[in-house]
Amino acid sequence: MKLPQGFRAVGVRAGLKVSGKPDLSLIYSADPLVWSLTTTRNLLQAACVTRNRVRLDSTDPVHAVVINSGNANCATGDQGVTDNTEMARLVADALDLASPDTVLTASTGIIGRHLDMAKLREQIPNLKDQLGDDTDALARAILTTDLVSKTAEVTLPGGGRIVGVAKGSGMIHPNMATMLAFVMTDVVVDQTTLRTLWARIVADSFNQITVDGDTSPNDMALVLSSGRVSADAEGFAGGLEHLAQDLTKQIARDGEGATKLLTIRVRGADSVTDARSAARTVASSSLFKAAVHGNDPNWGRIVSAVGRSNATVDMDRLRVSVQDVVVYHGLPQPFDAKALSQAMDTEDVIVDIDLAVGDKSASAWGCDLSKEYVTINADYHT
Amino acid sequence: MKLPQGFRAVGVRAGLKVSGKPDLSLIYSADPLVWSLTTTRNLLQAACVTRNRVRLDSTDPVHAVVINSGNANCATGDQGVTDNTEMARLVADALDLASPDTVLTASTGIIGRHLDMAKLREQIPNLKDQLGDDTDALARAILTTDLVSKTAEVTLPGGGRIVGVAKGSGMIHPNMATMLAFVMTDVVVDQTTLRTLWARIVADSFNQITVDGDTSPNDMALVLSSGRVSADAEGFAGGLEHLAQDLTKQIARDGEGATKLLTIRVRGADSVTDARSAARTVASSSLFKAAVHGNDPNWGRIVSAVGRSNATVDMDRLRVSVQDVVVYHGLPQPFDAKALSQAMDTEDVIVDIDLAVGDKSASAWGCDLSKEYVTINADYHT
Repeated sequence: MKLPQGFRAVGVRAGLKVSGKPDLSLIYSADPLVWSLTTTRNLLQAACVTRNRVRLDSTDPVHAVVINSGNANCATGDQGVTDNTEMARLVADALDLASPDTVLTASTGIIGRHLDMAKLREQIPNLKDQLGDDTDALARAILTTDLVSKTAEVTLPGGGRIVGVAKGSGMIHPNMATMLAFVMTDVVVDQTTLRTLWARIVADSFNQITVDGDTSPNDMALVLSSGRVSADAEGFAGGLEHLAQDLTKQIARDGEGATKLLTIRVRGADSVTDARSAARTVASSSLFKAAVHGNDPNWGRIVSAVGRSNATVDMDRLRVSVQDVVVYHGLPQPFDAKALSQAMDTEDVIVDIDLAVGDKSASAWGCDLSKEYVTINADYHT
Repeated sequence: MKLPQGFRAVGVRAGLKVSGKPDLSLIYSADPLVWSLTTTRNLLQAACVTRNRVRLDSTDPVHAVVINSGNANCATGDQGVTDNTEMARLVADALDLASPDTVLTASTGIIGRHLDMAKLREQIPNLKDQLGDDTDALARAILTTDLVSKTAEVTLPGGGRIVGVAKGSGMIHPNMATMLAFVMTDVVVDQTTLRTLWARIVADSFNQITVDGDTSPNDMALVLSSGRVSADAEGFAGGLEHLAQDLTKQIARDGEGATKLLTIRVRGADSVTDARSAARTVASSSLFKAAVHGNDPNWGRIVSAVGRSNATVDMDRLRVSVQDVVVYHGLPQPFDAKALSQAMDTEDVIVDIDLAVGDKSASAWGCDLSKEYVTINADYHT
């Protein structure tokens, strides 16, 4: 996939991964970038997360993002902070940038082990000459145990483009799943607008994904704009949200052991917070996820998850549909169990929930719970 | 197990369960009982839960509790409310009690189906003649898919006794796991003291159990006192807490597909709320539960769960031990991975966590996550 105007990227093998797969990548723009970031809220934070958050408050321009996979550089103490800063400095030196402060960093992989800086010192200087104009190498090099690359693009009227790459929830090798998303656009947008917009969009996309309720110390969703092409503000916002949700679904679909993408759409909520919470609670119910795996339209597990989500609900008018079949409306409704189970025997299961108290809505995405998930996570060893 | 003074109980087969196992039981006291109750916080509530909560606010004496298993009488609308009230009336008539309001009710089992009142009308009148002075028939008749009966007793200095029965988290037949606990004591205690005490004890026992994070519309923990024997207030409180935690552990150990009891003990917390939350978050992490199943002392999953629990933590001094071996103290610590994995290959895995910010503590109990859990919950059909 071609990068938006102003961006170049590369992904290479630096030898951080035992598998020998690509594990070092770089995003670069000669012109300074307008950017925004949301990160994990976990108190356990990798050095890259802490450093990028500090950079959010500075006025330094941003020109590059360096990403390594295979090692999360998390729970690595002072040495980890030093290593993370050196990673940025190596990139600044290689690209002739004025300061390491113009370089953001991201890491994903095993936690509690120090980065192999010798390999990074050897490889980072070579990145500049390999920079290209498409996403392919970048999208591959940020993966850990993901089964597939995740990319998405949107082209707006007027020619402005938004392109994103992401990695998700393979958890075999790292201790925790890291969610990384890097979204690049050539659309003109100011920093303040982008930051407000990105916070809202991440809340309705990446933060509404749930594979198993756990969050990683390295989660990060970054958006960068090179500001080359004008676009209608509303069209840009809509395009960015669409792209973020597209990547979100790709991550959920590739969840550990997942065989289905589960979409929970909630409407009729008192507030967006309520709608998000109800959707997320259903999407993360182990009981319902296991039912989805077995093609069972288990309305009891859905209604019960809604009932403990802290959302305001009119329980007498609460309405639940699975694959467009109403299974609950204040009370359980009659339905053809065999036909509905067959309709669920597909890669996309959609649940619609009307809380019947307001006009706010939100969605959440997840996957089914399979025996494979347990195998993967019980057999991994620290 | 012998009941405390003043109590009689029975459990029989009424034919509500397809399996033909015992499914109707009664607790009775000729003298009025001092009592307290905590119930599910789920908005989806069975008729029995709603009715008992109303009874909490009345001054009517309580003489009996009738419990059926096999049918939760939940999501059954107005008919369910009528049936639940009739259940109480049938018991009041059978026992010559002044009013149905002196009878509490509890149901567990499948949801969304009406109670077979014909069977209850036939069997309830026969219960009185079968009342006995031990817990055995009662403890069996409240079970659904539990593998074993759960009973516990404490005898206090002075001879006062506390006896409890509980059922837990078998979820094959009902749509949701119901947690029911009935605790009986002959110790003298006034209503106000008992209610304050029970709320605190349930928060540190039954509410700290987690099999999969889901809550049932029928969960109920009831304590009843016949007030025959005096006891030291502190001794009674300690005994009641010990008994509640004993039943809690029995429920967790018998969790669906469970092969291990997981105990998370948190200390050094800023508040009891923080300690409870941190303990519960670790005990309910699917990732860590799967690691426990595989005998993996995965400190990353523990620290990350603590980090997203909303508890205040000094991350630089956070200390985690598994089976008494320190695995994390601000940073990962060296340990003999093979020896610790062998130490985890037992039915009891204990994790100690010091948040290093205060002097409050709490525990939570759970179980490992096995493939059997997925099999049970994916293969069940609505």
